[in-house]
Amino acid sequence: MRDNPLRRCWADGTPALGAWATLPTSFSAELLGRLGLDYVCIDTQHGLIGYDESVPLIQAIGLGSSTPLVRVPWNEPGIIGKSLDAGAMGVIVPMVNTAAEAEAAVAATRYPPAGRRSFGPIRPRHSEGDDYFARANLEVACIPMVETVQAIENLDAICEVPGVDAVYVGPSDLAVSLGLAPGDNEAEARFTEALAAIVDGCRRHGVVPGIHASAALLARRLEQGFRMVTITADSVALARALREDVETARGTSGGGDAHALY
Amino acid sequence: MRDNPLRRCWADGTPALGAWATLPTSFSAELLGRLGLDYVCIDTQHGLIGYDESVPLIQAIGLGSSTPLVRVPWNEPGIIGKSLDAGAMGVIVPMVNTAAEAEAAVAATRYPPAGRRSFGPIRPRHSEGDDYFARANLEVACIPMVETVQAIENLDAICEVPGVDAVYVGPSDLAVSLGLAPGDNEAEARFTEALAAIVDGCRRHGVVPGIHASAALLARRLEQGFRMVTITADSVALARALREDVETARGTSGGGDAHALY
Amino acid sequence: MRDNPLRRCWADGTPALGAWATLPTSFSAELLGRLGLDYVCIDTQHGLIGYDESVPLIQAIGLGSSTPLVRVPWNEPGIIGKSLDAGAMGVIVPMVNTAAEAEAAVAATRYPPAGRRSFGPIRPRHSEGDDYFARANLEVACIPMVETVQAIENLDAICEVPGVDAVYVGPSDLAVSLGLAPGDNEAEARFTEALAAIVDGCRRHGVVPGIHASAALLARRLEQGFRMVTITADSVALARALREDVETARGTSGGGDAHALY
Amino acid sequence: MRDNPLRRCWADGTPALGAWATLPTSFSAELLGRLGLDYVCIDTQHGLIGYDESVPLIQAIGLGSSTPLVRVPWNEPGIIGKSLDAGAMGVIVPMVNTAAEAEAAVAATRYPPAGRRSFGPIRPRHSEGDDYFARANLEVACIPMVETVQAIENLDAICEVPGVDAVYVGPSDLAVSLGLAPGDNEAEARFTEALAAIVDGCRRHGVVPGIHASAALLARRLEQGFRMVTITADSVALARALREDVETARGTSGGGDAHALY
Amino acid sequence: MRDNPLRRCWADGTPALGAWATLPTSFSAELLGRLGLDYVCIDTQHGLIGYDESVPLIQAIGLGSSTPLVRVPWNEPGIIGKSLDAGAMGVIVPMVNTAAEAEAAVAATRYPPAGRRSFGPIRPRHSEGDDYFARANLEVACIPMVETVQAIENLDAICEVPGVDAVYVGPSDLAVSLGLAPGDNEAEARFTEALAAIVDGCRRHGVVPGIHASAALLARRLEQGFRMVTITADSVALARALREDVETARGTSGGGDAHALY
Amino acid sequence: MRDNPLRRCWADGTPALGAWATLPTSFSAELLGRLGLDYVCIDTQHGLIGYDESVPLIQAIGLGSSTPLVRVPWNEPGIIGKSLDAGAMGVIVPMVNTAAEAEAAVAATRYPPAGRRSFGPIRPRHSEGDDYFARANLEVACIPMVETVQAIENLDAICEVPGVDAVYVGPSDLAVSLGLAPGDNEAEARFTEALAAIVDGCRRHGVVPGIHASAALLARRLEQGFRMVTITADSVALARALREDVETARGTSGGGDAHALY
Repeated sequence: MRDNPLRRCWADGTPALGAWATLPTSFSAELLGRLGLDYVCIDTQHGLIGYDESVPLIQAIGLGSSTPLVRVPWNEPGIIGKSLDAGAMGVIVPMVNTAAEAEAAVAATRYPPAGRRSFGPIRPRHSEGDDYFARANLEVACIPMVETVQAIENLDAICEVPGVDAVYVGPSDLAVSLGLAPGDNEAEARFTEALAAIVDGCRRHGVVPGIHASAALLARRLEQGFRMVTITADSVALARALREDVETARGTSGGGDAHALY
Repeated sequence: MRDNPLRRCWADGTPALGAWATLPTSFSAELLGRLGLDYVCIDTQHGLIGYDESVPLIQAIGLGSSTPLVRVPWNEPGIIGKSLDAGAMGVIVPMVNTAAEAEAAVAATRYPPAGRRSFGPIRPRHSEGDDYFARANLEVACIPMVETVQAIENLDAICEVPGVDAVYVGPSDLAVSLGLAPGDNEAEARFTEALAAIVDGCRRHGVVPGIHASAALLARRLEQGFRMVTITADSVALARALREDVETARGTSGGGDAHALY
Repeated sequence: MRDNPLRRCWADGTPALGAWATLPTSFSAELLGRLGLDYVCIDTQHGLIGYDESVPLIQAIGLGSSTPLVRVPWNEPGIIGKSLDAGAMGVIVPMVNTAAEAEAAVAATRYPPAGRRSFGPIRPRHSEGDDYFARANLEVACIPMVETVQAIENLDAICEVPGVDAVYVGPSDLAVSLGLAPGDNEAEARFTEALAAIVDGCRRHGVVPGIHASAALLARRLEQGFRMVTITADSVALARALREDVETARGTSGGGDAHALY
Repeated sequence: MRDNPLRRCWADGTPALGAWATLPTSFSAELLGRLGLDYVCIDTQHGLIGYDESVPLIQAIGLGSSTPLVRVPWNEPGIIGKSLDAGAMGVIVPMVNTAAEAEAAVAATRYPPAGRRSFGPIRPRHSEGDDYFARANLEVACIPMVETVQAIENLDAICEVPGVDAVYVGPSDLAVSLGLAPGDNEAEARFTEALAAIVDGCRRHGVVPGIHASAALLARRLEQGFRMVTITADSVALARALREDVETARGTSGGGDAHALY
Repeated sequence: MRDNPLRRCWADGTPALGAWATLPTSFSAELLGRLGLDYVCIDTQHGLIGYDESVPLIQAIGLGSSTPLVRVPWNEPGIIGKSLDAGAMGVIVPMVNTAAEAEAAVAATRYPPAGRRSFGPIRPRHSEGDDYFARANLEVACIPMVETVQAIENLDAICEVPGVDAVYVGPSDLAVSLGLAPGDNEAEARFTEALAAIVDGCRRHGVVPGIHASAALLARRLEQGFRMVTITADSVALARALREDVETARGTSGGGDAHALY
Repeated sequence: MRDNPLRRCWADGTPALGAWATLPTSFSAELLGRLGLDYVCIDTQHGLIGYDESVPLIQAIGLGSSTPLVRVPWNEPGIIGKSLDAGAMGVIVPMVNTAAEAEAAVAATRYPPAGRRSFGPIRPRHSEGDDYFARANLEVACIPMVETVQAIENLDAICEVPGVDAVYVGPSDLAVSLGLAPGDNEAEARFTEALAAIVDGCRRHGVVPGIHASAALLARRLEQGFRMVTITADSVALARALREDVETARGTSGGGDAHALY
C-alpha cells in the first residue's frame, strides 16, 4: 500500500492544499488530480456526483499524485464503506455535531477493532496491494466536518474520539449556524472567533484543522492555523473563468490569452 | 418552431459569439448555455463527448437562450442526422476541403429536395413543434469548416454550394496546413492572409465567416471581419482557472475572490 | 430565484396537477415537463432512477414550466439535500408516520434556523440565482407522505410541524396498511374514510392534501378535497399505450392514429 | 444458436409485427420485448440511442421472445458489425438507393464468402452458442430501407442482391422523396402507388416487404401485401398516452383507468 | 409470478450455489446469469456497483435462470425497497448483529402486515406479473448477514425473527471480528467453531445457512452444513485468469488454451 | 510527452505483449493496465465498448504502465481522431486490405504533413504535455490489420506506406478469408503459411508483425517471428475462469484457491 500523501503533510507539518470535484466527469477529475495538490476531494454531498459516477473519478485522480478523498452525503456506514472500497483514501463526513456522531464516522472508516468497517476492498486490493488490510486503518483518513455551533460546543469530545485525524470546517454552514448568511464573513467576529476556537480545539488534541476556502483565502487560513485548506473547486473555477471570458469579450474586462482555444 | 437565435444574428449583422462544450456532463453544458451567448457548440470531434453523452447536453443548453450546435466528428450523414434529431439547431462539419464535401454536408443537413436528410425529428417534434419539417431547412445551420490550404483554394466553390450558411475556421488546423505549429500565429503573414482570404471569400458569397478564437482574440477577429466567434471553451477555461488558483495559492500570483468556494 | 409554480397553485387555491417520472432517461422527463402541468416528480423511491440518473432529468424538466420535485427513497437527509442541490424545488418523503419523522423531513429540507439543511446549492445558484439562500426556505416544498394507519393517527401532529407544506397520499400503501390489496379500493369504506380523514386533517392545519391518482380519478379526488393530484406516470402510460397498440393490431380493439409512427 | 423468430414468420408466411425503441433506457426496451411481437428494433438512426446505450437494450429485449433488430444510423460496416456483435439478430439499414449500397449492407452483415463481416461475436458466442459462426449467415437478417424514388427505380437490382432478406419502407422519407410532406399520405396516389410498386418488386424476388406503420395502419398495410409491419414505438406511444391523460384530466376527453397509478 | 429458484433449492434440500457480481456492466452480469447456478448476487456493498448501474445488471441476470439477488450497502429500507422494485428476488443485508436489526431488514423486505415495504413494484409488475403483490412476501428472500461475534451471540434471536429465510456468512468480516486477518482461516479453531455455531443455530430454527466461499471451498462448506454457497465472483475470477495468462506467457506457468482469443 | 512503451519494445527488439479490453467498465480496464504488459488495447470494434464508454477506460489504463491503444470499429477518420484525442497512444485499424486503405489509416493518425489528423488533443495536452503536437507523429502508433487474402496479396504495398508502424493479424478473420472456420487452425498449412508470409513481408519493410493470440499460443507466435502478441482478453479470461469455477464446484475439475472470494 502506498503512503497517503495527505498523511505525510500532516506528519511533517506542511499545510495540505486541496481541490474539490463537483462535476460528474472523469476528465475534470483528472485535471484536478494533475494540479500537484495534496488531495482532491470528490464531493458527493453537494456536488452533482453520486456513487456510480464517483468510481471513474477516483480512478482518474489516481493519474496524479494527490490523495483521493470523498465527501459522503451523510454520516452513513454504507456510503462511507463503498467510497473507501472504490479507492478513496479518506472520507470527509458532513455535520458531525457530537462525539457519538464522530464515533459513528470512525466506526464506518476503520476495520475492527478500531471500528466496524466491513472487509471487501474490491479496488484497493489491486490499486494498493495485498497489505491493504494491514495498513488501511493507519493510512485512510477520517475527517468529520465541524460546521455548527453545536459541533464547536462538542469540539473537545469530537477531537478526543480515537481515529479522528482531522476536522474540516464548512464555513457556509458554520456561518448559517451562527445566524449569518453564507458568503464573506471575514469581518464578522462571531465567525472568526468560531474559526479560532476550532483551530485551538484541534491543537489541544493533535487533530488537524481543515477548512473549505479559496486560493485568495489561503494565506489568511494558514495564518489562522488551518493545516488542510481547499483552494479551488471545479465548477466554481469553471463558472468564474467563463464569466471572465464573457466579460473580456463584452469589453467589460481586459486581459486574457491571445491563443485560440485549441 | 422557434427562430434560431444564431440566424437572427446573421440576418441583422450582429456578430454571433459562442462557447464550446468539451466535457461530457450536462451541468457544465448548462453553465455554457446560461452565459447569454448566441450559440453553444458541443464538440463531438475533439471534445470528450460522443453521441450518447451529447443528448442531455443538448437538452441542458436549451435551459438558456443560445442556439445549440454540434460539431460532428467527421462529414458523415449518420452522425449529422442523429445530432439534428436530438435537437441540435446546426452542425459544424470538420475538414470540408472541396465543393463536393460541402455538398455532402449540406445533403446530410437538409431535407429533400435541398438535401437528403432522413426524416425522424424524434426530439424536435416536441422541443420545436409540429412545423419542424416545414421550417427546419430554413432554421437549421450547416457550417462546414474551412481549415486547410486546399479548402481555401476551393473556397469560392465551397461557398457557392447552396445551403452553406457559414464557414468556420479551425485556426490550429489551418496553421498546421500552412506549415506552422498550432498556437499563436498572429504574427505570421501566411496565417493572417489566409484568414483575410477566407473572410473575403465569404463576403463574395454572402456566407458568414466564423472562427474558433478566445475572449482576448475577439476584438481582432471582429475587426478582421469574422461574424461568428467562439470566445470560450469549458475545459480550457476550467484548466486556466485551476492553474490560476494554484498560482494564487502558491503565492506566484495575486488576486482572486475572498469568498469561500461554497 | 423563480417563484415555485406549485406554491402559486397552493396560494391561489388552484388544484395542482402533476406527472410522475420513473424512467431513467432525460427525454421522457422532458416530455413530462412539456405537458403544461404544475409539477413533475422524479420518483427515486419506486422508479428506476437513482441519484446519478436523476440529475439530467431535473434539468430536462426545466425545459418546461412545471416545478421539478423528487420523491426520495427514504427519509434521509443525505439524499434530500443532494436532490435539492441538483435543483429539485421540493421533495416528497415516503412513509412519514410520526411528527418526529415529519420534523426530520423538514430539517433536511430547510436551512437553519428552520431546519438543518447543509448549504451548497451547486446547481440552483446558477439555475435560480444569487438569492437562492434567502428564498429557498420559502420556495422549496417539503411534502411528507401520509400512507399508513399510523400516519393518519398522527396526522394532526404531522400537519402541525412547521415547514410541512403538503402531505401526499400513497393510496396503494395506504390500502395495504388498511388490510386491503393495492388497486381499486374506491368502494371500500375504510379506504375512502381514510382519504376523507386526511383531507380534513389537512384543512384543519392549512396543509395541502395531495395524492397519487390517475387522469380518470382526478375529478373524484378534487371533489374529495385533494389539491395536488398526480394524473399520469411515464412507465404506466407507456405500458398502457403499447398494450393498446398491440390490441389494435391484433384486432381486439379499434381506433388509433392512421399516421405512420414517424 | 436459436432460430430467429422473425425468419420463422417469413418462412411460414405469417406477417411479422414489431415495435420500435427510441428511448435510451433498458426498462422501456424490456417492456417492448415483453409485448409478444415478432421483433423489436432499436432505432439508432432517429432514436435517442447510440451504440453505448444500445447494448443493455439489446439484452433487455432478450427477456422476451422478440427478435432484436437494430436500425443503424447509416450504411457503415463499423456500426453494423458492432450491433451484430452485441447480439442484434438483424439490421435495418437506412437509405439504400442502389444495388451497390445494398451489396455494401449485405457485405457488412454476412461473414465471408457471402460478405465481409469481421469475426468477433463477443456477446452472441454466449447468448447464441458455439454454432454462431456456422449459422449466423442464415439467421441474421439484412434489411435495407427503400425510401426514395431512386430506390424504387433500382428496386429490382436491390432485391436481386443475394443476402437481402427484406426491404423496409420509411414512409416519411418516401413521401418527402415524392415531394409530399411527412404524415398521412394515404389519399395520395403517388404514395400508395409507390408502396404497391415496392410490394410487387419484393414479390418478384422473394424478398419480404416491410414498413414503418402504426397499429391503426396495420390492416391496410397487410392488405397491401406488407409482411413486416412496425405497429408501435415507445416515445410515440408515451407521448400519446401522456397527452390522453392530460386531456382526460382537463376534461376534454373521457375514459381512462380508475386505478391509481401504482 | 415465477417461482424463485433459490427457494426451490431450499425447499427440496438441494444446496444452492451462486455467483457474485462486482463489475458495473451488464455483459459480465449476463455471463454470471448464464452459468446455470441457483443465484447471482449483485454486490452493491463492496462491489463497484451503485443503484443506477444495478438495474441493467438485474435485467441481464434474468437472461439466465438464476435468482437475482442484491447485497445492499447497508441495512436501510430505501435501498432494499429500490432493489426489490428493480426486480431483485431477494436481498442480502450486511452486518445484522441483533434481532432488532434483523427485524428491520425483514420489515424493509416484506409488505404489511409482515413488514413495512412500500408498494410500487415498477419492474416486477412486468417481469413477474400481476400476482406479484400476492406472492412477493412468499417468494422474495430476506437474508441477513451474520458476520460478527455479536451476531453469533444473538444468532438464536436473529433466526427467530419471522421472515428471515437464510443467514449469509461473510467469512472475512467474521474472521476480523474474531481477531484474525481476512484470508485462509481454515486452520483456526475460533473460525471453524464459529462457522459450526452458525450452522447449528440455523438448523435449530429452520433457517438456511449460507456463506461466501469459492469453488475450491465448496465441498468443505457443504460438509460443514452450509446450504447456500457462493462459489465465484466476477472480478476475482477475472483477476485470477488474467494473472494466469500473464504467468503462462511469461513461462512461469504452463497450460492454457491454444485457440486465439477470438 | 512520455515515451510510448510499445515503441520502446519495437526499438529494442523486445517482443511486446498485450491485453485486450472488451468490457465497458473502467475497473476491468484498470486490472488490465496493472498486469505489467506492454500495451492494452480497448476493442471498440468487437468489444462491447463505444466511444463514450472508452474514455474512462483509456484513463484507467493510464494507472498502469502499458501503452493504451484503441481498436477502432472501422477505418474512419472521425473515430480514429476521437480515440487519439482521448489519449490512446495508437490505433489498430480493422480490415486494411490495400495500400490506399493503409494510407487512409495513416492520414487519420498523423498530423500534416505526414497525414491529415485534425488538431485538438483535448486530453493529451494534459496527460502528455505541451510537446504533444511536436512529438505525436513520432510516438503515436498506426497499426493496420492484415486479415484477409487480399491484404496479404497487397502486403508489400501496405507495409511500404510511410507511417505504418506495425500490422496486426486477426487470425479468425484471416482463417475465414482462407475458407477455414475461426478457431484452432494451427494444423492448417494455408493458415500457417499465411502467417509466415505476413511475418516475412513485415521483415522486408521494417514493419512490426503483431497478432491476436493467447497466452498458450505466445511461444509459437514468437517463434514464428511475431513481435507484438496479445495474450489475454478480459471477457475471454472471465468466461474461462467462471467456467472453471463451476466445474470445480460441480466436481468435474479439481484445484482452485481455498481462500474465500473476499
